[in-house]
Amino acid sequence: MKAEIISIGSEILLGKIVDTNASYLAGQLPLLGIELCRVTQVGDNQAGIVEALRQAWSRSDLILTTGGLGPTEDDLTREAIAEFLGEEPKVDPDLAEWVRSVFRRLGREMPERNLKQATLIPSAQPIPNPRGTAPGWWVERESKLILALPGPPNEMQRMWEREIRPKLRERLGGEVIISRTLKTFGLSESRVAELISPLLPSVNPTIGVYAKPSGIQISLTAKASSQEEAEGLITPLEAQIRSLLGENIWGENDETLEKTVGILLREKGLTLATMESCTGGLIANLLTDVPVSSDYFKGGVVAYSNELKIAFGVEAKLIAHYGAVSYEVAEAMAEAVRSRLGTDVGIGITGVAGPSELEGKPVGTVYTAVSDGVKKRVIHTLYPPPRQQIKQRAAFGALFELRKLLLERG
Amino acid sequence: MKAEIISIGSEILLGKIVDTNASYLAGQLPLLGIELCRVTQVGDNQAGIVEALRQAWSRSDLILTTGGLGPTEDDLTREAIAEFLGEEPKVDPDLAEWVRSVFRRLGREMPERNLKQATLIPSAQPIPNPRGTAPGWWVERESKLILALPGPPNEMQRMWEREIRPKLRERLGGEVIISRTLKTFGLSESRVAELISPLLPSVNPTIGVYAKPSGIQISLTAKASSQEEAEGLITPLEAQIRSLLGENIWGENDETLEKTVGILLREKGLTLATMESCTGGLIANLLTDVPVSSDYFKGGVVAYSNELKIAFGVEAKLIAHYGAVSYEVAEAMAEAVRSRLGTDVGIGITGVAGPSELEGKPVGTVYTAVSDGVKKRVIHTLYPPPRQQIKQRAAFGALFELRKLLLERG
Repeated sequence: MKAEIISIGSEILLGKIVDTNASYLAGQLPLLGIELCRVTQVGDNQAGIVEALRQAWSRSDLILTTGGLGPTEDDLTREAIAEFLGEEPKVDPDLAEWVRSVFRRLGREMPERNLKQATLIPSAQPIPNPRGTAPGWWVERESKLILALPGPPNEMQRMWEREIRPKLRERLGGEVIISRTLKTFGLSESRVAELISPLLPSVNPTIGVYAKPSGIQISLTAKASSQEEAEGLITPLEAQIRSLLGENIWGENDETLEKTVGILLREKGLTLATMESCTGGLIANLLTDVPVSSDYFKGGVVAYSNELKIAFGVEAKLIAHYGAVSYEVAEAMAEAVRSRLGTDVGIGITGVAGPSELEGKPVGTVYTAVSDGVKKRVIHTLYPPPRQQIKQRAAFGALFELRKLLLERG
Repeated sequence: MKAEIISIGSEILLGKIVDTNASYLAGQLPLLGIELCRVTQVGDNQAGIVEALRQAWSRSDLILTTGGLGPTEDDLTREAIAEFLGEEPKVDPDLAEWVRSVFRRLGREMPERNLKQATLIPSAQPIPNPRGTAPGWWVERESKLILALPGPPNEMQRMWEREIRPKLRERLGGEVIISRTLKTFGLSESRVAELISPLLPSVNPTIGVYAKPSGIQISLTAKASSQEEAEGLITPLEAQIRSLLGENIWGENDETLEKTVGILLREKGLTLATMESCTGGLIANLLTDVPVSSDYFKGGVVAYSNELKIAFGVEAKLIAHYGAVSYEVAEAMAEAVRSRLGTDVGIGITGVAGPSELEGKPVGTVYTAVSDGVKKRVIHTLYPPPRQQIKQRAAFGALFELRKLLLERG
């Protein structure tokens, strides 16, 4: 089945919002074995929407539209579908009652203009939208489908997941496309490609290599007639990649480094504290994005100045002798914060986030230490500017080292 | 002038990357008075690209393509433009020498396949790309333009800003569209719309209201024959909005709260420290995203547990009496960190980031204190879940209060 997406909204064409709906749906369609051939973004303009529908209809079996289902005059998706199909939109009494009930629950009268959200054409069935006042449209004609979804991402995603995806899956049966993502850290994109180059020509699964702030990701995408069969195609290839990239792979799919280290810390009953200089609190911030992090993350300090590093327990003579940006100070920071905050594990990180060099060390120099008092890992890395990217890579690098230390403990 | 964007790349249609290039260019075109009519995303498929070019050519005067200029077999933009225009691509000797020189500087031999990046057709002029190996194409025929830009955002943006925008501006002269964004905090989207409702019907400038993590933004967009005239249309409307929204407006255009407070702290020669609980280091992280922040931000502590709050100087009896999530503890955190870290100003923040309530206080409860020892601001707010959104809003809220305190000092 071939599909196209039409994203509707002048805000998109003015660059005011990024069309994340299209990329969300683009990521979902392969899982149903649906091939997305094109995405078109058009403004709130009925003629433009009709033309986009006409072209998509000529090429594809499934058209997904997002946006333009609101109550105002520039919400024109329903009108455009009706015009394109030559059908007459009429208010549906049940749907009108549903829209009224949404307003009643909010203790408000339904404005008259919201009645257009209760219209249907003969080929359209309403799709429930409990998160908003705009029902979707499920339009079927000449064995083609037009599915109109609302623009707000939370409404759109719920409608896709709960209402549309199950029906499409049932209808299609057939082919399934499964994707698995392996996440690495510490290797460049070209190094990853080089290491796995004998595998790259693979056709089913296909292999894609992508650079993300948290490291290089490898995605394996297999087509088959069932989920089991698709997974059976992926598993041996995944094993080969894992043996080539070894410990550089830290997770897969929607795992994050901060969740991964959190799970390890909980499993082992260990607590953690951080002393950050160049990352400025980003490591603590990532760790505390995980809901249960207060179980193992006791806290941290951001010691941006030398005085503060000293106040928090780093010996002044170490800084004087080796410089604040050094193996020795990173290690002392990890030990000091462990001992001051009374945790099992400490992270210390010091470096040059830029824009200027420091102590003769170039922008991007970072020293990271992770210690549990017995085992320790202290590394030196050089990350490319700009500043925020250095902070990000350095923070992920620290979590990556922490993961290694936790695994080494066994 | 009417324009269309064609974004080329199978990664986009698989949902692996979000097409931020299109939204970047979409935001740029109005500033030149160019109307963007459509964005089309197509895969790495020559026939598909040719069809997209044909349709765009029939509707528009300017076609911008991004992506597909790399050296590999699935980079097909040049080939598609040549096929569409019926012209023969040939290697240009000067361009070939330039690509070779890029490789020479990296100390490497140019792979033969990179030679395709040195091809041109008779209607195409090369556009320099010092950040990569892919020159752009400036194609002119029948008074229409096709401009082919590379896919990597940093290469694409430089090429737009330095090479393409100045030429287009010169060519167009005529109409200018200027946009100014006013940034608020502390008001809901509907409250902003209500307060400025008498102004909303304005046609030139138009007014848009958008919700962002750092608060509600109002954008004013004016069309005129010159930049001065467009700004003259915006200024009185901006003044009216400023008088309606008052101190809730904290900045405009590309200003950020963390930069704004940084500038104020530097101007006043003040230093800052933070003690964070529910925001988990996010405030420190935001502050240190600003390059010169080490001048005024001395450091911070993330005191995730009560023991740590006490270790860092909050009186245990305050926590026992009022609870860790309280006005009193937020204020004590701000004072303790000021005094411990020896700074002029302190921020203390404590709350319930979720997923579970704490001390009987609901998820989203946040107490924020900002103090310079004389003046202080202590506020209580309730932010909607999920966790990361609570952290974000709470962090921006703290910077917003800090800004108020700094302005009050005069």
